[in-house]
Amino acid sequence: MKSYMSSMKEFEPEFVIGLTKIFEELVVFNQILGLKIVLITPDCVRGRINMRPELVGHFNANRIHSGAISAALDAMGGLAAMAAVGARHMDEAPKQRLSRFGKLGTIDLQIDYLWPGIGDHFELRAEALSLLASVATTRMEFLAADGKLLSTATGAYIIS
Amino acid sequence: MKSYMSSMKEFEPEFVIGLTKIFEELVVFNQILGLKIVLITPDCVRGRINMRPELVGHFNANRIHSGAISAALDAMGGLAAMAAVGARHMDEAPKQRLSRFGKLGTIDLQIDYLWPGIGDHFELRAEALSLLASVATTRMEFLAADGKLLSTATGAYIIS
Amino acid sequence: MKSYMSSMKEFEPEFVIGLTKIFEELVVFNQILGLKIVLITPDCVRGRINMRPELVGHFNANRIHSGAISAALDAMGGLAAMAAVGARHMDEAPKQRLSRFGKLGTIDLQIDYLWPGIGDHFELRAEALSLLASVATTRMEFLAADGKLLSTATGAYIIS
Amino acid sequence: MKSYMSSMKEFEPEFVIGLTKIFEELVVFNQILGLKIVLITPDCVRGRINMRPELVGHFNANRIHSGAISAALDAMGGLAAMAAVGARHMDEAPKQRLSRFGKLGTIDLQIDYLWPGIGDHFELRAEALSLLASVATTRMEFLAADGKLLSTATGAYIIS
Repeated sequence: MKSYMSSMKEFEPEFVIGLTKIFEELVVFNQILGLKIVLITPDCVRGRINMRPELVGHFNANRIHSGAISAALDAMGGLAAMAAVGARHMDEAPKQRLSRFGKLGTIDLQIDYLWPGIGDHFELRAEALSLLASVATTRMEFLAADGKLLSTATGAYIIS
Repeated sequence: MKSYMSSMKEFEPEFVIGLTKIFEELVVFNQILGLKIVLITPDCVRGRINMRPELVGHFNANRIHSGAISAALDAMGGLAAMAAVGARHMDEAPKQRLSRFGKLGTIDLQIDYLWPGIGDHFELRAEALSLLASVATTRMEFLAADGKLLSTATGAYIIS
Repeated sequence: MKSYMSSMKEFEPEFVIGLTKIFEELVVFNQILGLKIVLITPDCVRGRINMRPELVGHFNANRIHSGAISAALDAMGGLAAMAAVGARHMDEAPKQRLSRFGKLGTIDLQIDYLWPGIGDHFELRAEALSLLASVATTRMEFLAADGKLLSTATGAYIIS
Repeated sequence: MKSYMSSMKEFEPEFVIGLTKIFEELVVFNQILGLKIVLITPDCVRGRINMRPELVGHFNANRIHSGAISAALDAMGGLAAMAAVGARHMDEAPKQRLSRFGKLGTIDLQIDYLWPGIGDHFELRAEALSLLASVATTRMEFLAADGKLLSTATGAYIIS
C-alpha cells in the first residue's frame, strides 16, 4: 500500500502513547478484541490480534469470527484516520490533537473476506487514502502471520 | 422490509432451537457481543443486544463501538442466510439442514452508520433479499429501542 | 422505505425544475443513461430508465449492464442528497439552494445485484437516511416495471 | 497490488482476442463508456478510458461522472474474474473457456471515490484477490494519467 502522503515527519512519543491508550484502553471493545497497536506513523498504522477462544466464529475450524475481523478493521481504519488528522495538525500540541478523537466517527465500512482467518495471531494494517476537510477514506488489511492477505476493507470516517 | 419469499411455512421448534444454540453458544464471539436471537422465521430473523460496558466504543457518549455493530450485523446476516437455506430445504430433517451451517461463510459486508448507537438495548433485523445456488444476499438493520434506524447493512454469504 | 424526515413541506416548482434540468441535461452522462426524473420531494426521489440497446451488458439475455445500474443508482443517490439539502435550506431562494449542487460529490457507493435487470423499463427510488453537516447517507433501489426489487445500493455524499 | 496467484502461464492470443471482443463490443455499454482493454494476463487486467463530453458528471470542472467510474470499474472487475476463471481452466480450449462468460454476473460492488476524476484519459487496473468454486472477489483501481489513484473498488462475481 502506498499512502497519498509523502515524506511526513514522525509523531512525538506523547501523541503515539496517548493515541495508543485511547485505542487499547478507553475504547473498551478493542480490549475485548485484544487489539494491540504495533505502529503509528503519519503514513500507516499497524496492529495485532492474538487468537483466543472468545473470538471463535466457526467452531469446526477454530476460525476467527468474520464480525471480529470487521470490528478490528473498523478500529484500525479509525486509527489511520486519526493518524492522518494528527499529521495535518502538527502545529497543535499533542493533547489538542488527541482531543480530535472526540469527533471521530465511522460513516461506513466495507469488508471483503478472501480466505478463512485461521492462525495463532493476525496482523492488521491501515492507511488513509484521502483526507477531505471532514471525511477521511481509509484502506485496511487483515493478514495471516505469514503475510497472506485474508481480508481487505475500506471505510469512511467523519473527522474534525 | 419485505422479503422475496411469499407465504413460507414456519420452521419446526427443533430447527429453531438448534439454530439458536449454534448462534448463541457455539459461535463464541456472539456470546461476547451478547447477541440473543429473538425470532427465526423463513422470512426474517430478529435479535437483541443489551448494552454493556464491554461494548463501549466512544467513552464520551457511552456509545456502542461501530465494530460491535458491524459484528452483530454480520452475525444476523448469516442467520438470515441460514434461515433462507433452511426454508429451501424443508424436505430435509432439521438436523441435516442445521449441518449446512458448516459451510456458511461471509463473502463481504457493507455497513452504513446513520446515527450514534446510544441506549440500554438494541434490536436487530435481517432478511435474505436473494438466494442463488451458492450465494445469499442479505439486508440487516440495527435499531434503537424506540425503533429508530441507527445502522443498515448488506452482506453476501456463501451457502450450500 | 421510510425516511428519517417527517412531514416535510413540498418544494417550489422552480427548485424542482431547476434540479431536474441539472440532473437530466447538465450531468451529460445521465443523458447517456437515459435517466429521467419522475419525482422530487424532500422525502424521496424517483426516476425511470427505458431499456435501450446501448445499455446492454449481457447479450445473451438482453440484460442491462450492472455498471449502468450502478451509475444510475449513484445519480439517484446524489439527487436524494440534493433533495435533503434543499429541504434543510428552505429559507434560501431556490437558485441559491440549487447552487449547492456545485459541491456535491460521491464519497462511496455500494451496490447489491439481486436479480438480473431484464425488461422494457426500470424504476429507481432514493432517499436520504441521514444528513450530517457535510455528509449525507442515502439508500437507493432499482426496480423492475412490476415493482420487483432488482438491486439495492447505499451511498455517502459530500454536501454543503 | 499483488495477486493470490503465482507464476501463472500466459493466455493464448485466441483467448485474449476473444475476451477483448466480448468486453469491447458485445457488452455494448462498455462501448458507450469507451472502455478499451490494454492487457489481459492471468494475474491482472488493464484498461483505458479517454475522456469525452458524454462522460461528464460535473459540468463545473469537466469531471467524469462518478457513475461512469463505477460502471468501468465493474466491467474491469468482471474482466479480472474472467481472467482468473480462464487461468483455472487452461486445460479447456479457448472457445470453451470464453463460453464461461455466459454465467458471469456481478454480485456486489463497492467504490471509494478518493479524488475528482479530471483529465484527458484514465487508466484502470483489476485483479482477482480470491477465487472460490462459484465466487471471485476482485479489486479494481481507477487512476489518473500520471498514476495518481483516484478511485478504488472491490466486487464479488458469480463465476462458473
